[in-house]
Amino acid sequence: MSDPAADADLAAIRRRIEESFAKQGFMQTLGAQLASVAPGAVEIVLRPHHAVSQQHGFVHAGAVGAIADTAAGYAGLTLMPAGRGVLTVEFKINLLAPAVGDLLRARGRVVKVGRTLTLAQADVFAEVDGQEKQVAFLTATLMAIEGREGVSD
Amino acid sequence: MSDPAADADLAAIRRRIEESFAKQGFMQTLGAQLASVAPGAVEIVLRPHHAVSQQHGFVHAGAVGAIADTAAGYAGLTLMPAGRGVLTVEFKINLLAPAVGDLLRARGRVVKVGRTLTLAQADVFAEVDGQEKQVAFLTATLMAIEGREGVSD
Amino acid sequence: MSDPAADADLAAIRRRIEESFAKQGFMQTLGAQLASVAPGAVEIVLRPHHAVSQQHGFVHAGAVGAIADTAAGYAGLTLMPAGRGVLTVEFKINLLAPAVGDLLRARGRVVKVGRTLTLAQADVFAEVDGQEKQVAFLTATLMAIEGREGVSD
Amino acid sequence: MSDPAADADLAAIRRRIEESFAKQGFMQTLGAQLASVAPGAVEIVLRPHHAVSQQHGFVHAGAVGAIADTAAGYAGLTLMPAGRGVLTVEFKINLLAPAVGDLLRARGRVVKVGRTLTLAQADVFAEVDGQEKQVAFLTATLMAIEGREGVSD
Repeated sequence: MSDPAADADLAAIRRRIEESFAKQGFMQTLGAQLASVAPGAVEIVLRPHHAVSQQHGFVHAGAVGAIADTAAGYAGLTLMPAGRGVLTVEFKINLLAPAVGDLLRARGRVVKVGRTLTLAQADVFAEVDGQEKQVAFLTATLMAIEGREGVSD
Repeated sequence: MSDPAADADLAAIRRRIEESFAKQGFMQTLGAQLASVAPGAVEIVLRPHHAVSQQHGFVHAGAVGAIADTAAGYAGLTLMPAGRGVLTVEFKINLLAPAVGDLLRARGRVVKVGRTLTLAQADVFAEVDGQEKQVAFLTATLMAIEGREGVSD
Repeated sequence: MSDPAADADLAAIRRRIEESFAKQGFMQTLGAQLASVAPGAVEIVLRPHHAVSQQHGFVHAGAVGAIADTAAGYAGLTLMPAGRGVLTVEFKINLLAPAVGDLLRARGRVVKVGRTLTLAQADVFAEVDGQEKQVAFLTATLMAIEGREGVSD
Repeated sequence: MSDPAADADLAAIRRRIEESFAKQGFMQTLGAQLASVAPGAVEIVLRPHHAVSQQHGFVHAGAVGAIADTAAGYAGLTLMPAGRGVLTVEFKINLLAPAVGDLLRARGRVVKVGRTLTLAQADVFAEVDGQEKQVAFLTATLMAIEGREGVSD
């Protein structure tokens, strides 16, 4: 049996992330898409193509970092009260294997929410012939921003 | 008085980086440009525009990371013998201020070249009304790759 | 029913890590102890005391980093063939809460083993009144070293 | 000609860092010493010995990280008003060469001071036969803490 109040909350969280994602010119430029949103967990997918490649034909580390940082950041935003936005303070990404394949999936999740700082992570997997292989791992420190005009998501 | 041998070397280094840069679909997608190449130091510039923005209108942390990683990686490549390519193993970026302004400049340089691993850094500055302000700092570990087909730059 | 060959392997792995750990003057100085060893996973514990504190009385970030890096590094070493040692190339640690409590537990594990580079992680928990609270998270890049005298663990 | 007001300020900054350093049980345990203090820059030295070694006889990455983090943190503290303390939120350290030699010098400096967060760096050099060689590079994010009992340095 579903809980109508929880369903409404979840719908509001999804709408918030979808509206914010739609404002990101960069995600459109990459061709990245929001695949799923849950409290504390967001998945973004990207289909490898020439426009996101580096010189060897792999997806550029910067593009891998971009979808991983975005998935981690939005995982954090799902847990923020309305009116509070998040900015990435720093992120580190370890690139485990060349990012090639049919699809990249960046799965972000929150490790710890703090009043000021939140730690989030993202795993990035490449789908190759229906098999998933991890290609990157990111940790990001997010800062909650309140009362700064234009920064509420 | 110039040294013809050193001039020829420098011209070869520049050509190598320019040819590799031209192969990067992602740099073209961002609208990034190679601004300068010297042994151990490479500068890349990016004009902020909607297509590289995040939800608040700043340049996306992932795009800032992309030009910083590329400047650091190519700084490393300038010091590699022909036939050896570089791949980024990991990078960390600290975002010091929202990336806004008329132009972003990512200045990469090499800290230490090793046989297998090279440490490079990049500072990213935003030009606002003719003034430079640092907006990010990156460190990257690069791995030298030899004898892998398609990876010689 | 136990598998005698697997038991012998596990005993050899444990002995290797224990002998290496005993050589670390620094772990003895900290008062750190090896709590458990399994293939790809190592736990190290440290009882907080003044000799490992920073100025506010918390365990020093450097000491937290030391046990986390050691747990991650040994998790990697459990998977290396005899004669191959590991060195930490880089680590990053996020400190989530002041490290105080009755006991710190650093749990290291391997994310991906490569021929040259291995990615390992460690979570550090503080036990306070029988409850565990995460105080830190580390990622480390390890380099496998072969044929260098004195570096086989 | 010296400026008496600036001299008094500098003396107060030095006293603040010295008093805080003296409270760090961990720095005494390591045998580390405060070598110099200036506004935005602090140097800490450590003489390699068995008690700070890892299994191959090099100074442990955790001990290198500890003096680098401390130098970076105190570089930040020199710029904080009285009553405000600093905590390390995260640090990343790249280990460029085995830390061996007659003396290690960790030189911390501030890159950018913010109201909440400060970015600091540290280079670690090993002195071998009177020559300096860089063995590590660290970046740290520091958080300014105000009004928390026991955290004013």
